[in-house]
Amino acid sequence: MEAIGAPAKMTKQSAARQQVLELIDRLGVGTAIPSERQLSVDLGVSRLTVRAALDDLAREGYLVRRRGSGTYVQQPKISQQLTMTSFSEDMRRRGMAASSKTLSLTRQLAGPRLGRFLNVSPGDDVVVVKRLRLADGVSMAIETLHIPANVVPGVEPRDLEGSFYELLRTRYGVEISTATQTIEPTVTNEEESAALGVPLHSPAFLFERTSRDASSRTLEFVHSIYRGDRYQIVSELTPS
Amino acid sequence: MEAIGAPAKMTKQSAARQQVLELIDRLGVGTAIPSERQLSVDLGVSRLTVRAALDDLAREGYLVRRRGSGTYVQQPKISQQLTMTSFSEDMRRRGMAASSKTLSLTRQLAGPRLGRFLNVSPGDDVVVVKRLRLADGVSMAIETLHIPANVVPGVEPRDLEGSFYELLRTRYGVEISTATQTIEPTVTNEEESAALGVPLHSPAFLFERTSRDASSRTLEFVHSIYRGDRYQIVSELTPS
Repeated sequence: MEAIGAPAKMTKQSAARQQVLELIDRLGVGTAIPSERQLSVDLGVSRLTVRAALDDLAREGYLVRRRGSGTYVQQPKISQQLTMTSFSEDMRRRGMAASSKTLSLTRQLAGPRLGRFLNVSPGDDVVVVKRLRLADGVSMAIETLHIPANVVPGVEPRDLEGSFYELLRTRYGVEISTATQTIEPTVTNEEESAALGVPLHSPAFLFERTSRDASSRTLEFVHSIYRGDRYQIVSELTPS
Repeated sequence: MEAIGAPAKMTKQSAARQQVLELIDRLGVGTAIPSERQLSVDLGVSRLTVRAALDDLAREGYLVRRRGSGTYVQQPKISQQLTMTSFSEDMRRRGMAASSKTLSLTRQLAGPRLGRFLNVSPGDDVVVVKRLRLADGVSMAIETLHIPANVVPGVEPRDLEGSFYELLRTRYGVEISTATQTIEPTVTNEEESAALGVPLHSPAFLFERTSRDASSRTLEFVHSIYRGDRYQIVSELTPS
C-alpha cells in the first residue's frame, strides 16, 4: 500500500524540476537562469540532480542552452490547432512571416508504395519536393511533398516558396477538400537536424497527410518533421 | 536550379528505406526480415546504409529488434483519434483489455504551479497518482494524475486500477464536460523507459490534459507519456 495521506513524497529530481519550472514562470522569456552551482545551493540538491532536471527541461523546450553563455528561458511553443489551415495561413494569423525554401524538386516513378499512397499507378510520375518551412526566418519544419505529376504540370522550385495550397488553387484550379493526417513522435536524423538547426535526435513531430479534392482524387502525400522544441498541438475536447 | 524532369535522384539511404518499407508491407507482422548482410547484397548498398535505414525504421516503430534473434516486422501502431474517450473505453472498443497499475498515490500541497493548473490555492491538498496504462497486458503509457483532494475524498490506489472517469462518475457523481489538451513530442527519461520497457530516449508523446466539469471546476491535470513505437494520432481534416 502507498503513503496515502502521508506527507508529500517526491523524488529529488521531480522536486527540483518543479522548482525550476516555477523559476522559469517568474523569470520570463529570454532571461538567463542561475548557474547549476547556484541552483544546487538554492534548491539544496546535488549539481547532478540540477543538471538532470535542466537537461529534461531543455529537451522539452522550456530552456535553451547557449554554448559558453548560459541557460535561458525559451519562448513558449507555437500552439497548433488540428485544422486544415496551411502553414502559411497559420503563421500569418499569428502575425509571423511564413516563408519556404525549396531544397530540391525532382521527378521520380511512384513505385508500389508511393503509388498506393497517391492512388496512381507505380509507373506514373511523381513530383517530390523537399522544402524548409520558416516562421520569422526561423526553421520550423522540413517537409517532403509528393504530388502526382499530372496535378502540377510545369511546376518549378520557386513556385513552392509560398503556400502550396494557394498555388494549387490559383494556378491549377484545384481545391483540397478532405485530408487524413497521422501524427507520431520521432527524433530528428542527421539530415533533419542539420536542416532545422537542432541537435541530432531532438524530439520532433512526424506529420503524414494525404489530401484529396472533392472527387476523392489524391492531390498530395506530405511527410513533415516539425521541431518539438518550438511546436505543440492544442485541442479543446468535448465528450464524444 | 534543381533537376526537374531529370531521372529520379534519391539518396542511397532513402532508396534503401523505401525498399525495406515495401518488404515490410509484403512480409506482414511478426515475420523476420533478412539479415543486414543479406539486405546489403539484395539492395546493392553497403551494410552501413542498410543498418542506418533499419535503425530509422526501428525507431519509427516499423521494425522491432530482438537481441540475439533478429529484426521483425512490428505490429501497426494503435491509431488514436483525438476525442475525450478514456483510455479504458478506447481500448475496449478495439477489442483489447485495458488495465491500469497504480505505481504510487500520494498527497501533497499544490504549490504555485500546480495550484494554477488546478485552479486551487497553493496551500490546498492535491492527490498525485502515478499509474501505468496497459493494453492486453503491454505497457502503453505512464500517467501522472493530479486531482484536487476534495474532488476524490478517500480515494485509494486500487480505485485507480480501472477508468478514472468512470470512478469520478459512479463514486463521486462528477462528470467531465470539457478538456484542453496539449501534445508534444518527447523522449523517455530513465524512469519512463524502465516503466514502459523501452530503450532510454525513445520517441514518445507527451499529453497534458486539464479537464473541467460543466461549472468549470477543474477536476484533473494529467501528464502522460505514450510510447511512440506503439501509438499514433489520426485525424480527418476538413476545411476550417
